[in-house]
Amino acid sequence: MSEQNTLIVVSNRGPVTYDKVDGRRVERRGGGGLVTALRGVREQHHVIWIASATTDEDRVVAGEAGGGEVVLVAHEAEAYDRYYNVVANPMLWFIQHSLWDQASRPELGLAFHDAWREGYARVNRSFADAVVAALDEHPDATVFFHDYHLYLAPKFVRAARPDALLAHFVHIPWPVDWSVLPEPMRRAVHDGLLANDVVAFHTRRWAQNFERSCEDTVGGTHGTRVTHHPLSVDVAEFERLQASNAVRAAEATLPRPEKLIVRVDRTDPSKNIVRGFHAFAVLLEEHPEWRGRVTMLALLDPSRQSIPEYVEYVADIERAVREVNDRFGPVISVQVADDFPRSVAAYKQYDVLLVNAVSDGLNLVAKEGPLVNQRGGVLVLSENAGAYEELAEWAIGVNPFDVWGQAQALHEALVMEAGERARRADGLRAQVRDRDLSQWIAGLLSDLPRAAA
Amino acid sequence: MSEQNTLIVVSNRGPVTYDKVDGRRVERRGGGGLVTALRGVREQHHVIWIASATTDEDRVVAGEAGGGEVVLVAHEAEAYDRYYNVVANPMLWFIQHSLWDQASRPELGLAFHDAWREGYARVNRSFADAVVAALDEHPDATVFFHDYHLYLAPKFVRAARPDALLAHFVHIPWPVDWSVLPEPMRRAVHDGLLANDVVAFHTRRWAQNFERSCEDTVGGTHGTRVTHHPLSVDVAEFERLQASNAVRAAEATLPRPEKLIVRVDRTDPSKNIVRGFHAFAVLLEEHPEWRGRVTMLALLDPSRQSIPEYVEYVADIERAVREVNDRFGPVISVQVADDFPRSVAAYKQYDVLLVNAVSDGLNLVAKEGPLVNQRGGVLVLSENAGAYEELAEWAIGVNPFDVWGQAQALHEALVMEAGERARRADGLRAQVRDRDLSQWIAGLLSDLPRAAA
Repeated sequence: MSEQNTLIVVSNRGPVTYDKVDGRRVERRGGGGLVTALRGVREQHHVIWIASATTDEDRVVAGEAGGGEVVLVAHEAEAYDRYYNVVANPMLWFIQHSLWDQASRPELGLAFHDAWREGYARVNRSFADAVVAALDEHPDATVFFHDYHLYLAPKFVRAARPDALLAHFVHIPWPVDWSVLPEPMRRAVHDGLLANDVVAFHTRRWAQNFERSCEDTVGGTHGTRVTHHPLSVDVAEFERLQASNAVRAAEATLPRPEKLIVRVDRTDPSKNIVRGFHAFAVLLEEHPEWRGRVTMLALLDPSRQSIPEYVEYVADIERAVREVNDRFGPVISVQVADDFPRSVAAYKQYDVLLVNAVSDGLNLVAKEGPLVNQRGGVLVLSENAGAYEELAEWAIGVNPFDVWGQAQALHEALVMEAGERARRADGLRAQVRDRDLSQWIAGLLSDLPRAAA
Repeated sequence: MSEQNTLIVVSNRGPVTYDKVDGRRVERRGGGGLVTALRGVREQHHVIWIASATTDEDRVVAGEAGGGEVVLVAHEAEAYDRYYNVVANPMLWFIQHSLWDQASRPELGLAFHDAWREGYARVNRSFADAVVAALDEHPDATVFFHDYHLYLAPKFVRAARPDALLAHFVHIPWPVDWSVLPEPMRRAVHDGLLANDVVAFHTRRWAQNFERSCEDTVGGTHGTRVTHHPLSVDVAEFERLQASNAVRAAEATLPRPEKLIVRVDRTDPSKNIVRGFHAFAVLLEEHPEWRGRVTMLALLDPSRQSIPEYVEYVADIERAVREVNDRFGPVISVQVADDFPRSVAAYKQYDVLLVNAVSDGLNLVAKEGPLVNQRGGVLVLSENAGAYEELAEWAIGVNPFDVWGQAQALHEALVMEAGERARRADGLRAQVRDRDLSQWIAGLLSDLPRAAA
């Protein structure tokens, strides 16, 4: 493989983490959509992957001489905590998903200013140093930054290596309004990203918003190319998975009412889980004919429980479920667990898949579910999920704030005739198959002049 | 005065309201910045003013034959309540000031959908009918709509009178993101406004955001002219007022510590009153030398107490004051009252004027205060207030979410040297005098082709 095809992938979470079990080093494949997505890249390119060391054993690996294919960067614990738990989550995540209750939150104090400087900037600097070291080994490599943890790193790299080829993929929504972040910080975010040759998003909408916020913050994009390519699913892996014993075993334990509404989400306020339960209650209120015939199954992966807003959100979810079930009987079944085989089993069995996110960069559930569903299930999809840009034609679109509208959409999905359901399910499946993960990668690489040449 | 100069001004609140006292009809001058601003127009143009009847006696006046200079439109009580208390406030107000806690609020139910149709649209239709009737009397008049209560009316008028000259001034911020409002409603807002020949805002920022949201919602502005003219103060009226007996009497009762920080606001979550108190606490914590020497005087006009969010906000304000005063002694003095002479007295006496709004279309306090201040006082001004676009050069700018930054700004203002304070105070006063209310009106009228011709 030629040196031109070396990619230096930079992301907070890497493809593997290490633990020590009974004195032996054990390698675990990392989780998260980004890791899944980038795994495919490694089959076609020479990849150096730079990521944070997140376990004790990771830090041991990080300290070993090597320069192997995965470079783990060991950060100071306090700097990492500020970077991850104060700045990236919740601040940047909340800004980009429009989740702040701006009338009262956030209140930026000295602790936040310190966290920006001593946490976010410092960790980004460490990443940049690792990138520059990797470029010394592979001067013609393309550097491929990922996501909101690393907005400052590209500018640090650019200062040290003016001719490097740098690209950045932002996996979450991009809002126009960044006014929550003080001016020097929002300028740094934009200057950092614009140090890349290419900045890419999932959708045209986020790319356009980025161009607008650049105009407002730093007067334009200054020659950086702004593109969009929606992430997708590894179709082959999903087909293998849906036929696996683990998924079949999980399938046998699912509830099987006359109609099954499924949702699969992390317990993140952006996912709009509470409003989804309220919409289901409105459905049962307005259409009593569905009582006793339809169950909502919510498979929820616990998320970021070191952040107070996320702990509160789990409590809100539990309260909403209790209220609806107290009223209508056990109509909502919730399972809080990280159990992917069970999610795939539910994908196969849903009659309606509810994805009603407040805001979402893309939302892979909306692609994974239709790919393996076996019941001509209907996708009810938030117009604020990036996937809506691709899938609207075959989904029932909903406004995430409109609980009454979501109840109407659930009813429309439940009563839809078999022919129309099949037409839509076929359309979704064809779209996901046609624009799979390899298309995403090919699209991204075609934006990079040197890699494409 | 020629017929060409007839203006049909349309706003929810009119310039007068009527009450019956001891069997006699009593006329009261209406309140609010819009009424003050438009009073000046009446001196130069033949004005027909169409507004809602808001009192029992208004409804009697509305029913009387006439066609006088003020036309009061009597709406059904329930329709008006839905229009005003459900749709305009809080929904549109909260969207446009970015105040929704989108993770959990709003939840649009059937009641909101009904309020849109049976309240907001119906009241807008009634206004449009009144405008068409007025145009029958004055076919060459210019129609001048005001604000967020009347987004649908222009399209209704346009359908009936395709050649009418229609203009609309939006007095509050315009955000790019309207996704809280379901698509048919946000489309109706944009289609309604674009039925005007001219749509005007206070600032370039809001005008640009409008062009962007038009692009996202209806594919562009379709030939409607989008302009911006910042509202200002009636300088002559203010000079008379500041010398009045009422203001002098109020002045004598003000606290007079070594340094006086003043804020003057309605009790609206957009005004950011709680964070202002927290910033003052951070100042006293980080700069103990100010304890006992500086008082914050907050003159708060109670607002919209029929809306739960506003009642809660008053409780939040009271709690914040109690906490700060429990900690540092009686350092914050709050007066909740509609007492304009007292506000003008405080304008004259401040050392620092704090205007830290979360978001604000313009903010007239930032112009009124510097116009009459007598102590070389310093303006600390939110970068999210429309007035910042004009006044930044002479103010200390603050990010409304950055409580630590606001504390720094207060300290900077308190220690600023006399020469620099005078330079800035002079700059502010000259700017306000130079661009007074007559400039605003002249600018608006120059945008209207027929009126300007």
